[in-house]
Amino acid sequence: MQAIEIYMTFELLSKDPNSKARAGKLTTDHGVIETPIFMPVGTIGTVKGVHQRELKEEINPDIILGNTYHLYLRPGTGILKKAGGLHKFMNWDRNILTDSGGYQVYSLSANRKIKEEGVKFKSHIDGSTHLFTPESAINIQREIGADIIMAFDECTPYPCDYKYAQRSMHMTHRWLDRCMNHMKNTSPLYGHEQTLFPIVQGSTYKDLRQQSAEYIANVGAEGNAIGGLSVGEPDDEMYAMTEVVNAILPEDKPRYLMGVGTPSNLLENIALGVDMFDCVMPTRNGRNGMLFTSEGTINIKNKKWEEDFSPLDPAAYTWVDTEYSKAYLKHLFSVKELLGKQIATIHNLGFYLWLVREARRQIQAGTFRTWKDTMVKKLSIRL
Amino acid sequence: MQAIEIYMTFELLSKDPNSKARAGKLTTDHGVIETPIFMPVGTIGTVKGVHQRELKEEINPDIILGNTYHLYLRPGTGILKKAGGLHKFMNWDRNILTDSGGYQVYSLSANRKIKEEGVKFKSHIDGSTHLFTPESAINIQREIGADIIMAFDECTPYPCDYKYAQRSMHMTHRWLDRCMNHMKNTSPLYGHEQTLFPIVQGSTYKDLRQQSAEYIANVGAEGNAIGGLSVGEPDDEMYAMTEVVNAILPEDKPRYLMGVGTPSNLLENIALGVDMFDCVMPTRNGRNGMLFTSEGTINIKNKKWEEDFSPLDPAAYTWVDTEYSKAYLKHLFSVKELLGKQIATIHNLGFYLWLVREARRQIQAGTFRTWKDTMVKKLSIRL
Ligand SMILES: [Zn+2]
Ligand SMILES: [Zn+2]
Repeated sequence: MQAIEIYMTFELLSKDPNSKARAGKLTTDHGVIETPIFMPVGTIGTVKGVHQRELKEEINPDIILGNTYHLYLRPGTGILKKAGGLHKFMNWDRNILTDSGGYQVYSLSANRKIKEEGVKFKSHIDGSTHLFTPESAINIQREIGADIIMAFDECTPYPCDYKYAQRSMHMTHRWLDRCMNHMKNTSPLYGHEQTLFPIVQGSTYKDLRQQSAEYIANVGAEGNAIGGLSVGEPDDEMYAMTEVVNAILPEDKPRYLMGVGTPSNLLENIALGVDMFDCVMPTRNGRNGMLFTSEGTINIKNKKWEEDFSPLDPAAYTWVDTEYSKAYLKHLFSVKELLGKQIATIHNLGFYLWLVREARRQIQAGTFRTWKDTMVKKLSIRL
Repeated sequence: MQAIEIYMTFELLSKDPNSKARAGKLTTDHGVIETPIFMPVGTIGTVKGVHQRELKEEINPDIILGNTYHLYLRPGTGILKKAGGLHKFMNWDRNILTDSGGYQVYSLSANRKIKEEGVKFKSHIDGSTHLFTPESAINIQREIGADIIMAFDECTPYPCDYKYAQRSMHMTHRWLDRCMNHMKNTSPLYGHEQTLFPIVQGSTYKDLRQQSAEYIANVGAEGNAIGGLSVGEPDDEMYAMTEVVNAILPEDKPRYLMGVGTPSNLLENIALGVDMFDCVMPTRNGRNGMLFTSEGTINIKNKKWEEDFSPLDPAAYTWVDTEYSKAYLKHLFSVKELLGKQIATIHNLGFYLWLVREARRQIQAGTFRTWKDTMVKKLSIRL
C-alpha cells in the first residue's frame, strides 16, 4: 500500500450533535462541492432530458456523474480525447465523477468472465468483446477526465454467498493496489487533477465490511466510497453496513455511498455520516411519471390528477413546479410526450438537490436529526 | 353568405417593390403577431421537446398551432373547458391557432366516411367512432379557445381527380357557410375573442382554385387560408396555386398557407404574398437529426460530424447553437438520447423564426427579392 498524492481538499464544517451527519466542503480544480451532495447521473454525457444550462441554472449541482462503461463504448475514448475530455465534450465546466465501469459490466453486458486479470465482457450494444482491468479502468478514466475517478472493483449481487463475498472482496483489494499503482504511473490529460476513490465491498457481512473498510482506510485516499449496497438488500441491512463502515473510514475524508437511493435512503445515510450520493432514481422514475416531493410521492399517471389544475408542487424547487399543473403533466404522460419526461426529471432532480441542501442547512443549524425524522415520515406517503 | 364580425386587426406595414411580399401586423386579444410568421406546431398541447418558457424566451414566436383532432381525443374538451381553455391548460399566454381537425381525420384515422353532414371516423388511439361536422368543429374549437380557428374543410389528396376535387370544393364551401352560421350562434368561452379563417381548396386545378378563392374572398373574413397544398405536389404546382389564389384573396387581410413547408417553400410563398405558415418539418425533421441552417441542411447522424467539435451553428439563432458542438449532437443521436431531439428541435425552430423575421426585415428594407434568391440557393445545399 502506498499513499496517493493529495489534490483535493475536504473541510469538515459542522457536525450534527444528534447524529453522525456532517456538512463539508470539497474543493477540486473544477470548484467547490458542498456536502452532503447528490450527483445527478449523466450516464453517457447527458443527464437524460435536461439541458446543461438548465442543470446548472435551475438544479445547480456542484458535480454530476458519468458512466465509464457507457462512455467507453460510445462515443469512445478516441473522440473524448480529441474533444479535450468529457467536460469539454458535453460543455460542463463543473465537477464530474466517473464510476469505474465495473457495475455496468456486471449488470448490462453478456458473457462476462471475472478473472484475477480483470473482466472480459461483450458489449450490450454490438456484442463485441472487451477487457476491463484495473489498469485499463484507470486509463479510460484518465481519457474521460473526470475530477473524481473510481477504483475498479467487483460489485457483488444480493444475496451473496459468504465465501464468494470474501474472495471477491480480497480481489477488489488487490485490484485497488493495481489501480493506485497505475494512477501513479499515469498523469491527467487535460490540465486538471484527478483523484481516485477506493471502494469498500463485503456484501452484507459485517466482518467483511469491517475488514474492507480497514483496508481502504489504510490507503489514505482523498475520499472513500462504499459499494455493493442498494443492490436489493433491505434498507436496514444497508444502514447497518454503512454504520459499520463509517465507524472505520476516516472522518476527515468525504464518504461516497454508491448508487443510493430513495430520498429517505439519502437522509438516513446522511445521518450515518455519508457525504456523497448518486442514483438514477430521480431521473429514471421521473421518466416513468413518479414525482418525489417533500409531502410524499406522486404517480402522475394516476387518473386522480386528471383535473387537478394546481401547480405541480407548491414547494417550487425549480421553475417547472409552478409553470405546469398536475393535470397538464398527467396529460403529457397519457399522450407519451417528451416534455412530460423533461418536466418530471427537472422536478425530481430539483427535489433531490433541495433535499441535500436542506439537510446541509439543518446540520449547520444543529437541527438535522429532528428534521430528518419528520421528513422520512412524510417521504413515505403516497399522494 | 354573411360577413362575420371584426375582432382582429391587420395592418399592412410595407410591401416589397420586387415581389408580392408584405410585412404586416396582426393584433388579437393575445397580442401582436408580426408577419410573415411561422407558427410552431404544438400538436397536442406541447411543441414536442420544448418547454413553454424556452419557446417564449429563446424561439419567441407570437403564435403557435394546436391540432383540434388530437386535443379533442386527448385530453378532450371536458378537461380543456375545466382548465379554462388551452392557453391556461398548457400555460401559453400568447396567440394560438387551431386547425379544424379535418386534416388529421383524413391522414390518421381509420374508416373515415365523408358525407354532406360531416365526417365519421374511428380514433387512431382506441378505434372509437366519432363524427366531425362543421358545427362540431366550431364547438370543439370554441372549447379549445384558440384565437384563430379554422373552417371545417375537406383536404383533398394529391393527385386528385378533377371531378372529385370540384365536388369536394363545393362541399367545403357549403361547410364554410355552416361554420360561419354556427360561429354567429355561439360565443367564445374564455373572455377573449376568436376569429374564423375560411380555407381555399381546389387541388392543383387553376380554375377550381380561382372559383374557391372568389368564394372565400366574398365571405369577408378577417384572414384567409389556403389548404390542400404541400400534400405531395411538386413545388412549382404549389407556387402556381398560391399565385392564382393570392391574386384574388383580399390584400388587406392576412393569408395563411397551411402545412407549408421547407425554408425555401416559406421564402417563395412569402414572395407570392403569403403571411402565415405552419409545418411539422422543423420539429419532426429535427427529431430525426436533420438541421436547417442558413448555409444548407445538416444530417447530424452522418459520420462526418463525429469529430467536428465546432459549434452547432455559428449563426447562433438560439443558445443551443453555441452551447453544443456538432460532434456532441451527433453522439446524442447515435445513443438515442432525448437531449438530442430537444437540441435539434430548438435549433430548427430558432432557424425558422429567424428566417421569417429576417424576411420581414428585408421586406421593410425593400431588399427582400435579392436576399430571397440568394437564400433559396444556399438552403438547397447539403452540408
Ligand atoms: Zn484483502
Ligand atoms: Zn362552391
